Amino acid sequence: MSIKITGTGSYIPNVITKNADFHQHEFYNIDGSTFPGDNESTIQKFKAITGIKERRYLDDNLNTSEMAIIAAQKAIEASGIDPETLDYIIVAHNYGDVKFNCHQSDTVPSMATRVKHHLRIKNPSCVGYDVLFGCPGWIEGLIQAQAFIRAGMAKKCLVIGAEALSRVVDKHDRDSMIFSDGAGAAVLESSEEKGGILAHESATYAYNEANYIYFGKSNNAEAPQDLRYIKMNGRKIYEFALVNVPKAMKSCLEKSGKSIKDLKKIFIHQANEKMDDAIIKRFYNLHGLDVPEYVTPMTIQELGNSSVATVPTLLDLVINGEIENQELKDGDVMIFASVGAGMNINAVVYQY
Amino acid sequence: MSIKITGTGSYIPNVITKNADFHQHEFYNIDGSTFPGDNESTIQKFKAITGIKERRYLDDNLNTSEMAIIAAQKAIEASGIDPETLDYIIVAHNYGDVKFNCHQSDTVPSMATRVKHHLRIKNPSCVGYDVLFGCPGWIEGLIQAQAFIRAGMAKKCLVIGAEALSRVVDKHDRDSMIFSDGAGAAVLESSEEKGGILAHESATYAYNEANYIYFGKSNNAEAPQDLRYIKMNGRKIYEFALVNVPKAMKSCLEKSGKSIKDLKKIFIHQANEKMDDAIIKRFYNLHGLDVPEYVTPMTIQELGNSSVATVPTLLDLVINGEIENQELKDGDVMIFASVGAGMNINAVVYQY
Repeated sequence: MSIKITGTGSYIPNVITKNADFHQHEFYNIDGSTFPGDNESTIQKFKAITGIKERRYLDDNLNTSEMAIIAAQKAIEASGIDPETLDYIIVAHNYGDVKFNCHQSDTVPSMATRVKHHLRIKNPSCVGYDVLFGCPGWIEGLIQAQAFIRAGMAKKCLVIGAEALSRVVDKHDRDSMIFSDGAGAAVLESSEEKGGILAHESATYAYNEANYIYFGKSNNAEAPQDLRYIKMNGRKIYEFALVNVPKAMKSCLEKSGKSIKDLKKIFIHQANEKMDDAIIKRFYNLHGLDVPEYVTPMTIQELGNSSVATVPTLLDLVINGEIENQELKDGDVMIFASVGAGMNINAVVYQY
Repeated sequence: MSIKITGTGSYIPNVITKNADFHQHEFYNIDGSTFPGDNESTIQKFKAITGIKERRYLDDNLNTSEMAIIAAQKAIEASGIDPETLDYIIVAHNYGDVKFNCHQSDTVPSMATRVKHHLRIKNPSCVGYDVLFGCPGWIEGLIQAQAFIRAGMAKKCLVIGAEALSRVVDKHDRDSMIFSDGAGAAVLESSEEKGGILAHESATYAYNEANYIYFGKSNNAEAPQDLRYIKMNGRKIYEFALVNVPKAMKSCLEKSGKSIKDLKKIFIHQANEKMDDAIIKRFYNLHGLDVPEYVTPMTIQELGNSSVATVPTLLDLVINGEIENQELKDGDVMIFASVGAGMNINAVVYQY
């Protein structure tokens, strides 16, 4: 038995926010002090490090669960399955539905229930739940779906990653420019074909790293003191990811029985272009190799960091031939890898 | 191989809030109209239906994740395991950490990361994630841990349920009197002993039932219009639960291969005493039997409905001999069952 992705879908929000749109923002340091230099040079420096030119925000009248529904519909359509035959709907996110201009996370009922409701699935044995695991949540959902299939508890699972970080950013924090919104989904099925999920790796580093990404006050000391926003310690994350992500990817590849020479693609969480490039370079260096051309499709330049949505969206775009010089062929071996709040890291080796 | 609970723990908050403490509340109907009659008779009627005399709230300076940590420490101590050998920490909740007098849910990093951090576990292979599945979340965590163990992905899992509903209630809604706070935990291990988890059942009813429990406005039309609170349609939930929970329990018992005569205990989610009694009665009636004495330990009178925490707390209290006329003996067959937001229902047949 193998476990294969039989359909993917994604939702890329409509609102394009360019770097220039941040020119009028008042940025402060975390200690509340004014940020030195003008915004023009801040934004140029930001672009040089992260690679981000623009990002997508969902429309004011939309919510995270609605993006999840659209991505799910596309994945189901692509797979050709009857949605009533799904055993699980797993939705990875971190903040639930946060309405425009509100600050509360709405998580009851779960995003999975909202998706199931709007897909009009009646079968009560299709179990819907949400998983919170930082940015690596969608890959962790794949790993959990795999467990249910291997344990004989499921045959078909829909795994969705959806997040609207635009609703939880502090506009006085330069890091707000990194974050974006989106949703991606995949249908996973037990199969008699070869390939599919060959190995996985999953880890939580909480001893020293628990608060590298957290919910904190605005950098603007005059903002309401009881409101919290997504915050991160970029430098520490960079150092942490550079050591631990290549290691996890290498370990996962070894478990899969495949060689680095077999590897055709790496779908890595689009967190920061410079960091992603450094991770991929170190991963190949661990095998004494240089990075091959076109191995890492990237969308961060136009789509920013949409948390749990980056990997499934990227996969969907490549499958549908929407990224230049990127395609997948039958039998291609690939790695999905992610790092994020927790700090959590995971990887899956998958054969197309 | 079997999957057994080797240790349990719970945290019962300190603040006792009696029904009389609601005398001064201004209750309104959902349409904002004033509630007819005086609070004295409202509270008496509430007591007659739900069985609740008092409930527990956590101290103002505490949070959901801190209750989870205490319950986890006790469960680990009771199991005697080295926490570094845990493969998973699974935390079921629905609202994350909501600080006293705040309205934001803090879920980044996950509750599981917070627990792992405070337990000082270094091993990165101990994976921590949160599951959102309404009140049945803790039982669903058991079912997921079971999947990981059966799939060969884990040997030891810590499953925690923690919730502070006092932080999300609308004090102008009579239903606010139902809700309370708490945490319960269990260590689950693969074992060569007999018994353990014999069968499970899990379901999501989202077609018509998705919004029976939801996040809605205050019943007080003069309250801030952008704030949301836990809300429920009690009558619909009652009718739904009465039909579907006994059916799920019966199906689960059949899958387990055990007979109703073998059944020694039912640990049912403490949602409402009258509803729980009616569910148990119908479950036995489906087998042509009356309800045996002492089969259903109850704590709702003193502890209220603490969501994901009720079942593991009840189990912990019975194991520790803290409920009169309630004890467990080696080989005893029991059912854990729950119903809540989703609407989700689940059940596990377990042999002690």
